[in-house]
Amino acid sequence: MRQRFQRSKPVETQPQKMDARRYAKLPDPFPMWRGGVLHGAQIAYETWGELNAARSNAVLLFTGLSPSAHAKSSAEDTSEGWWEAMIGPGGFIDTNRYFVVCVNSLGSCFGSTGPASNSPSTGAPYRMSFPDLSVEDIARGGFETLRSLGIARADTIIGPSLGGMSVLAFLGQFSGAARRVISISGSAAASPFAIALRSIQREAILRDPDWAGGGYTNERPPATGMRIARKLGMMTYRSATEWVHRFGREPVAPELKEDGPFAPEFSIQGYLEAHARRFVRAFDPNCYLYISRGMDRFDLAKHGDGSNVEAIKRSRVEHALVIGVESDMLFAIGEQRALSEDFAAAGVTTKFAPLDCIEGHDSFLIDIERFGTEIKTFLG
Amino acid sequence: MRQRFQRSKPVETQPQKMDARRYAKLPDPFPMWRGGVLHGAQIAYETWGELNAARSNAVLLFTGLSPSAHAKSSAEDTSEGWWEAMIGPGGFIDTNRYFVVCVNSLGSCFGSTGPASNSPSTGAPYRMSFPDLSVEDIARGGFETLRSLGIARADTIIGPSLGGMSVLAFLGQFSGAARRVISISGSAAASPFAIALRSIQREAILRDPDWAGGGYTNERPPATGMRIARKLGMMTYRSATEWVHRFGREPVAPELKEDGPFAPEFSIQGYLEAHARRFVRAFDPNCYLYISRGMDRFDLAKHGDGSNVEAIKRSRVEHALVIGVESDMLFAIGEQRALSEDFAAAGVTTKFAPLDCIEGHDSFLIDIERFGTEIKTFLG
Repeated sequence: MRQRFQRSKPVETQPQKMDARRYAKLPDPFPMWRGGVLHGAQIAYETWGELNAARSNAVLLFTGLSPSAHAKSSAEDTSEGWWEAMIGPGGFIDTNRYFVVCVNSLGSCFGSTGPASNSPSTGAPYRMSFPDLSVEDIARGGFETLRSLGIARADTIIGPSLGGMSVLAFLGQFSGAARRVISISGSAAASPFAIALRSIQREAILRDPDWAGGGYTNERPPATGMRIARKLGMMTYRSATEWVHRFGREPVAPELKEDGPFAPEFSIQGYLEAHARRFVRAFDPNCYLYISRGMDRFDLAKHGDGSNVEAIKRSRVEHALVIGVESDMLFAIGEQRALSEDFAAAGVTTKFAPLDCIEGHDSFLIDIERFGTEIKTFLG
Repeated sequence: MRQRFQRSKPVETQPQKMDARRYAKLPDPFPMWRGGVLHGAQIAYETWGELNAARSNAVLLFTGLSPSAHAKSSAEDTSEGWWEAMIGPGGFIDTNRYFVVCVNSLGSCFGSTGPASNSPSTGAPYRMSFPDLSVEDIARGGFETLRSLGIARADTIIGPSLGGMSVLAFLGQFSGAARRVISISGSAAASPFAIALRSIQREAILRDPDWAGGGYTNERPPATGMRIARKLGMMTYRSATEWVHRFGREPVAPELKEDGPFAPEFSIQGYLEAHARRFVRAFDPNCYLYISRGMDRFDLAKHGDGSNVEAIKRSRVEHALVIGVESDMLFAIGEQRALSEDFAAAGVTTKFAPLDCIEGHDSFLIDIERFGTEIKTFLG
């Protein structure tokens, strides 16, 4: 399965010797939220812990825009996961108690079907022929993954960033399919500031001549566009305050010095450069474009006749934890507060946890202790 | 003079039928702060009000990155200036009392010598052969403009944004040349966040194939790079809160709709697009690159053996007004507070005015009433 998938990708992802991925076959045809269908589509996922006999202890984890399903190491793949310290036996998300399932988003490029996958009708990558992707489709990918495991109702659905939007899209579509929800630095509807940022990131890729209308080659991806998109991402994922402490006005590291006009001079430029270089070949540009636009379009209220509260009511979720970060410029703390108020107004037992971490939007990847404590307390 | 200058520019600026500009010839050679000299260089400036007999009522105004010297309309040029409502007879900056001089920054492209001007040694535009530009050079351009008018000491030097850095670079270099100073949303030394933003803007231009190593043509400027740079600028010049109120999630205006993949869908995208289109041919890309890097490098403390306070002491300035905006993400309010504390520690009579405008860095262009009231009160 893995070999077949890898052949279908126009851009190679990071080398991965070990592999803990499983694959859930999606219903065929799989209807997309804004129209169109997929045939033979799949979701890549990983699991930790054991599903209990009642199939009632599943924690479904959605990711941010760019991570894979590899949230945590395991015997099958000992490499560090993107939320390594959060999950484990006796950990914040306790795999002695819970069966944790992390899904690679539909539309992404780490095993789930997306624009970089081969279309069964042509045998060639979908690229721009992939149907419009919505956060609702990502949520449905997680829902169907649980169904394939015989799980009718998740104990808890949880996700940060895009994952926080995905859990809301899950609630908006599937009544009674989740008992509890944890939204971390997510959004009930993208703010104009977030739309601005993402649309500039997309424009950098779309206007890179190497994007070639989506038909770029392995050898020549739209590297300039992806570099700029990633640097912009890093700028808004962290905070100005953190950077003052971390970088100040220190000169760029010698190994990141460059020749040529307007070469980097400050440490912060080297930091962005290092992130950009890692990202260019790690993520497929068309997948990035599709997911990014899907985030702009998401609006929870569409699932409740214009009301977030009504959408939440229909989901029949019982408990909610909403975590936000004061220094998050992209998914602002005010959005998190408003979301928690919507949960409460829908009759959901709600805890709002505003954290004053200085690492901005990405704090959930860094300040594991504080996020983990909130999550562990909520899971009880 | 105007005709000669315009011929030297590789990119035409906005059409301007009327012209109130005067030109100050800079000393020849004009030594640049980081090395190199200019020959036959000039500063374009405009004035309002009358210089008194004692030559003691001059208010020297430095601009942000992109404006010209046309801060205010006049009989010679009746078009609206960039600070139209701030300046005038009986106004916040009262031209019945003060002789206001606004300079186009050295290195810019609206009449002052810069990378787009012809080099006298070759007769062709300087482009990348222009020497390194520093905020100190911009400040010296203003200083020499006053000298050319027979003014040894300004009553007040004032500037917003880059202009706020320019007034500090003026103080850092010229002892006794200004009695009072007004710094608006400036910076004593660029923060890593501001450096990150500007270096991504520059990268967008530098990596645009049409930049052509600085040798782009009139017909084919690096439009993609300039578009992205401007959109990023607009994103950081305003605030997320303002945009929630102003744009929300409204659809893009019909006249800004486009065809093609990933076309704009939201009003905020149309707003950015309109700004980008206006900017592409209004500002010279090489000038933009030079000034932008100069802003990154500026550090007031270099003028005081590592101490802002010492640098300020040496200037012998007597009164300071520091205005900052709470919602400014680029020139953060903490920087403004620290700067006001440095002035006070240097023995300068100092007023710090933190304003809670929601329009972010650009508030000084919008909330004229609040800024003007602070300025008028300070000017006395």
